[in-house]
Parts: sequence; structure tokens; C-alpha cells
Amino acid sequence: MSAPLRVALLGCGTVGSAVLRLIEDQADDLAARIGRPIEVAGIAVRRPAHHPDVPQHLLTTDSAALVRRDDVDLVVEVIGGIEPARSLMYAAFEAGKSVVSANKALLAEDGPGLHAAAAKAGVDLYYEAAVAGAIPLLRPLRESLAGDQLRRVVGIVNGTTNYILSRMAETGAGFAEALAEATELGYAEADPTADVDGFDAAAKAAILASLAFHTPVSSADVHREGISAVSATDVARAAEIGCTVKLLAICERVGRAGDDAADGDSVAVRVHPAMIPTTHPLASVGGAFNAVFVEAEAAGQLMFYGQGAGGEPTASAVLGDLVAVARNRVAGASGQGPTGYADLAVRPMAETPTRYHVSLDVADKPGVLAAVAQEFARQDVSISTVRQTGRGDAATLVIVTHSAPDAALSATIAALRDMPAVRGVTSVLRVEGLS
Amino acid sequence: MSAPLRVALLGCGTVGSAVLRLIEDQADDLAARIGRPIEVAGIAVRRPAHHPDVPQHLLTTDSAALVRRDDVDLVVEVIGGIEPARSLMYAAFEAGKSVVSANKALLAEDGPGLHAAAAKAGVDLYYEAAVAGAIPLLRPLRESLAGDQLRRVVGIVNGTTNYILSRMAETGAGFAEALAEATELGYAEADPTADVDGFDAAAKAAILASLAFHTPVSSADVHREGISAVSATDVARAAEIGCTVKLLAICERVGRAGDDAADGDSVAVRVHPAMIPTTHPLASVGGAFNAVFVEAEAAGQLMFYGQGAGGEPTASAVLGDLVAVARNRVAGASGQGPTGYADLAVRPMAETPTRYHVSLDVADKPGVLAAVAQEFARQDVSISTVRQTGRGDAATLVIVTHSAPDAALSATIAALRDMPAVRGVTSVLRVEGLS
Repeated sequence: MSAPLRVALLGCGTVGSAVLRLIEDQADDLAARIGRPIEVAGIAVRRPAHHPDVPQHLLTTDSAALVRRDDVDLVVEVIGGIEPARSLMYAAFEAGKSVVSANKALLAEDGPGLHAAAAKAGVDLYYEAAVAGAIPLLRPLRESLAGDQLRRVVGIVNGTTNYILSRMAETGAGFAEALAEATELGYAEADPTADVDGFDAAAKAAILASLAFHTPVSSADVHREGISAVSATDVARAAEIGCTVKLLAICERVGRAGDDAADGDSVAVRVHPAMIPTTHPLASVGGAFNAVFVEAEAAGQLMFYGQGAGGEPTASAVLGDLVAVARNRVAGASGQGPTGYADLAVRPMAETPTRYHVSLDVADKPGVLAAVAQEFARQDVSISTVRQTGRGDAATLVIVTHSAPDAALSATIAALRDMPAVRGVTSVLRVEGLS
Repeated sequence: MSAPLRVALLGCGTVGSAVLRLIEDQADDLAARIGRPIEVAGIAVRRPAHHPDVPQHLLTTDSAALVRRDDVDLVVEVIGGIEPARSLMYAAFEAGKSVVSANKALLAEDGPGLHAAAAKAGVDLYYEAAVAGAIPLLRPLRESLAGDQLRRVVGIVNGTTNYILSRMAETGAGFAEALAEATELGYAEADPTADVDGFDAAAKAAILASLAFHTPVSSADVHREGISAVSATDVARAAEIGCTVKLLAICERVGRAGDDAADGDSVAVRVHPAMIPTTHPLASVGGAFNAVFVEAEAAGQLMFYGQGAGGEPTASAVLGDLVAVARNRVAGASGQGPTGYADLAVRPMAETPTRYHVSLDVADKPGVLAAVAQEFARQDVSISTVRQTGRGDAATLVIVTHSAPDAALSATIAALRDMPAVRGVTSVLRVEGLS
């Protein structure tokens, strides 16, 4: 068989070492699938002493030199973060090398720039592992659904927050307690900010929206709320109305899809906790699993489900991309990148239609419900259901609204907090997926 | 924008007319995604008079001439069946034209030959629509999971039988009654043989196994049993043990996946009704939906869910492929076809390990259970659970076995039928997905 294709591996943490292992374990299969053997030419790490299990002669701290080496054909970037990953990827493209990356933060920040550089060099940039780990999702969006009009992509794309919310629902624990448990079990990192504050999910949402709607969307375009404010009360209230709380990444094309793209359509992309009915396909996605629900004009409803994180699942996605770019390299071609022709406006969260669940402690006396209802009406927010439970001189009001612009709903909540008859707003969460 | 790419549409039934409509409705988007406009050059049908809604100047009965026409760049085949589809596809390849097909029967019978012809001509053959309608499945198997070792692919891939089995479970109806209802509602064809006898699912299983295991598998290699023998009793018995009955397409790599491919591994591919636990992700796939469950070494468990049939969903898959082959044509390249290097043996059904559920009417007297258990032991079949329910002088025995070669299980059933103490074997079905 012909000479091996040589791969530079940038980063050798959980994912990188799994990639290394899979390349070794599957050497014969990969060679047969690609048409040439794959060989690791070098591994760039910060601290070689921390990698005693890796062939020492492959390790280097000079990632910039490794990427440019003449005996390197392909680059796998699993460092994460913006720099030095960004510079290394641009350097790889300039040197005519295709890149496989798992870097959601970088792709969400600089996707169009990176794609342009890859296209200019006539090489590939694939990053299936950046969203939802092992679940084949980006290639289906980019290619399989390229002949359809996508309306919505709604996903559970962060395993850490899904684990925490699942535990809160199972045990009745509050956020802090469930987070502590997740940290202890290794499901949450020592600094959990990227996960619990929704940064990770927002980056993934930006990537999904870009591919789904053929338009550039960056992390900065995504409305982002994390789960640290989700209380045990929120979770209990959700259960009372047949719902469960999930952190959702929601990408929508607003306007009439199927018409000409240009005419006033926009995209709305947001990450926030929401109550969804327990009968919704996403509701039963528990623990560290990910799932993404897609609605398209012709295809209808689709769902993709699998492991969203972990070394081996993420490495599976990296290897799939590596086989693709290697086959393209053998064929002397480059694959078909995403198209970003649509250039749709991003609709601000304030104008995006949402539904709210609100739970209030109120004085149990005549006229309170009328006064509360009046606040909703003042903002033109229509109420779907109200449930009132009296206990002594106090009562609990649980209200689910119809759909209204998010700004009108948040203004209503602010007004309710100021009402004398309202002793407390005990739970506010958006509701998704109710008919 | 440059000159249009011209498409020959072979067939204009439910799927073909949906393809035609989507090409028209999405003209601007498709042009932007491909880089050149798409235009329908001609539509081959048998009876032009049956297509009054189609531009009449495009219709032709001479499909062979249409495929070869110089002004045709790409071919979409949605005729179905073996001939004339097969000859037309070979003619298209010879004329240097890529083909998008929805033809499961043909791909399952002659996949390797068709792929070889496409590769020789340097053109593409894509057929995402052939399996599970709109669900992106073949591209993920072929590309996204190309760096992993697949162990199992288990799917509900026939909507008609799934609808019938769902109705039997909901209403307690027998097969004939549920089939009549499905026919009346248009979920089953006038001649339902291809669906209810499992031919459709077997063709899809052959395609899935070929891609999943990188080895040629044809329809003839698939063990096939339909659902016409599934009784109301089977469905009721399934419910009693927390299961539901589904027609499953099961593709397995037998032997130790992850090792070198060559060393004794084989594939087992089968289609038959089976009881699966109601907690299994496939159990809740109802009505005309399809879902496919995939187990891979590194990726773990994945599931794909969506509409498996219907004009629009199937057309969505056809259009996705059409965009891909058109982009390749614009780029002057061809895409990466599947690899069939592994050439694994097909394990016969008799040797494939399965589990059985058996329900027997027996005389309620001492020693019967011992005698029955002895028949299982004689074939080296281990019993997992037995439930005995007495009623007067008769009793019902419900037995679930552990895993054993299918031949041993069927031999046991035959022996039980001959036992004097066994008044009747009232239900026999395989069980899948029990731990």
C-alpha cells in the first residue's frame, strides 16, 4: 500500500488520547477505508511530562512548527479555546493542510473566517465533534438536509447541565447541591462556568444555526441564560404542570420559510432553561446524553440522539471527519463546505415570541387575580391557563401564558414584582413545546 | 449566474412529483447552495396522460433516450423496482452522469455492481431516500461513523408494518383486521406483500449492513420473516411481560469487533417481528415513523428518528443528495463512495444467537413443567423466566429463554409441539433488547 498520510495531533487530553488510541487500534480498517494508511507524525502538548503513556518521540511543545512541517498532511485540533488554536488552524490552511477540529468556541466565534481560509487554500475544515459529541449532526444538517428548508433546531447539547437538571428532578435537590454532586462525580469541571452559564451550549447553538439556515451566526448573536437560577421550586412547579426543566438550545428561522430567503426572514438563536412537556421527545433525554430535534419543511420532524461528550464518543466524531478529509486528500479534492449565502438578520430576544410559566404567592383576597390578569393585559400578553391554590390568607397563582414577545413577558414579570398584592414571584421559566 | 444544471427525472409518482415541486419552490435556495441553478430537463413516465399537472413538454415515455441526452447532467431515479431502473442507471453512468436514487430493492440486489460502475465513470451514486425516508442515516453511517467500528444497527424501517403492529397493540385487533384498516387509510398498498412479508425491510437491512460493516450484503443474505403470523395473542403476551411487538431489521457484526476485521468476524442480518421492552427507545416509535438504533465501539449508542415514508419526506432526502451530486459536479469532483473492503461472511440464521418467548397451553398436572424444561435442556437452551398460570385442569406456561442459536430454539419449539402434555403452542416470538 502507498505511503501513509501523516497527521499532526494538536492537544492530547481526554479527546486527543482517545483519538490516538483509535488511530492505533483501527489502523488496518482506517487504511482500507481511506486507501492509504494513517500515521501520527507528532503530538503538540504544553507539558510533555504529563503524557507518559504517549510515544515520547512524537511529543513536541512547538505546535506552530509541527503544523507547518513538510511531513504533516492533515491536522487534528483538539486543544479547545480560541488561542493558540485559531492561529494554528490558519497556519495549517496556509500550508495547504485540511483540519479536523472539535473546537466549538472557535468555530462559533470565527466560523466564516476559518471557512474562507480553508476554501481559499482548497482544503477541508470539518468539526462534527464540536456539537453533540458522537451524534452525527453537522454533516446531516450541512448535506443530507441541503435540499430542504429548516424551520427549527432544538437541542439538549450540554451534558453537564442536563445531568444537573435530571438530578434536581429526581431528588428534589437545589442547583447548588446537584452541581456539587456533578462535580464530585466528574460530570462538571472544577470551574463549571462554561457549562452552567450556557456558554458551551450557546457556541453549539451558533454553529447549528449557521449550518441549518445557511447564514453566519456567532456566539455573540445567541441570547444566553444558564441554569444557576433554576430552583427546586421551578423543577417542582414544572412537574405539577406535566413538564420537566431542560436547558435548550433553540435555533429558529422566523418568517415564512419556504418563501424566498431574502424577504424579511430572520433567525432567532437562544439558550435558556425551559419547561417542556414530559411527552416531548426531548423530555426523556436524561443524564449526560444529548439530543437534537429538527423540523424541516419537507422532511418533517427528525431527532438525533446519543452521547454528547466523553473521550471515546468525541473521538469517534473526530475520526469520522479524519477519514473524510483523508479520502478527499487521496482523491486530490476537497469536500463541500457549508454555504452562508443567506445572510439573515438576527432577531433580538426581546422580539422573539416565547411563552412563560409564572408562579406567584399572593394575598388570598377578592380582586387579586383580576389585578394580576390586568398586568398581563397591559403588556398585551394573553393567558393560557391559571391555577389558584388557597392556603390560609395566602394563595398560589400558577399562570402559563400564550406566546408573546419576550420583552412583553419580562416587563409583565417586573410589574408583578412591584404589585402590593404579590408577596413573591416564586418561579419564572419559559415554556417550550406546548401546543 | 452560470448555466443551469439539468436534471432528468425518472418516474413521477408520489415521490417524483414532490421532488419536482421542491425543485421549483426552492429554486433560489438550491441555486445558492449549489452554485448553479437546477432545471428539470425531462420527466420519464409510462403514461403521460396520467400526469396532467406536470409541464407537458417535459414528459417523455422514452426514459432510455432521456438519460443519454446531451443536455442532461444529472439523473434522479424514483421509478423503483429492478427494471428498467437498473438499465437506466447503468446507462447514466456510462454517459458520465451522477445518479440519485430512492430504489432500495435495486440497491439491495446490485449495490456493488452499481457502485463499481459509478466509480469507473467517476460519478456519484447517492440513495439516502432508499432507507428510512427523510431520516439522514446512510450518509452518517457511510461518513460520520467511518472512523468507528459498528457493532449493531437495529431499526424500525417499514412504516406500514409499524402502523399495523401499533394498531394491534392499541385495539387488540388481529393482523387481518389491522391490515384492512391500514389499507383503507392508505397506509398499506393494495398488494401489501412487500411490506407485510418483510421484503421492503429486508432490502433496507441489506443496505444498512453493507454500509455499516463495509461489506457487501444483498437482500438474499437477509433472513426474512414478515408479520402476517403475528397474532392478537402474541401482542397480548408481549404486553404481559412489559414488551411490545415490532418488526425489526437487525444488522450485527458477530465476533469481536474492534479486532482486526479479517479474523473470523461475520455479519448476521435479519428481519423478523420481535418483542422488545416498552422501555427500549424503539418501543415508543409509533405509527408510520421510523427509527434506527446504532451501537458503535467508540460512539456508543445513537438513535435516528423521523418520517420513514411519504412523498415530501422522501423527496427531502432525494433533494439533499441532488444538492450533493450537483455540488460535486460543479466542483468537477465526485464524492466519496462507500467502501466494501471487509468482505465478511454472512452468518446463517440457524447459527445466530436469539432469545425466544414461548407461550404454551399444557395439562395442569405434576411433571409437565419438568418435561417441558427437559425439552429446552435437550437442545442446550437455557431458560430465563417461567410463569405458570393454572385454570381448571389446564395451565398456561410462559417461558422466556436465554440466548441460544436460533436452530436450537426452533428445534425446541418443534419438539414441544409434539409433546402429549402440550395442548398447544399459543405464541412464539423472538425477544430483543432484554438485558
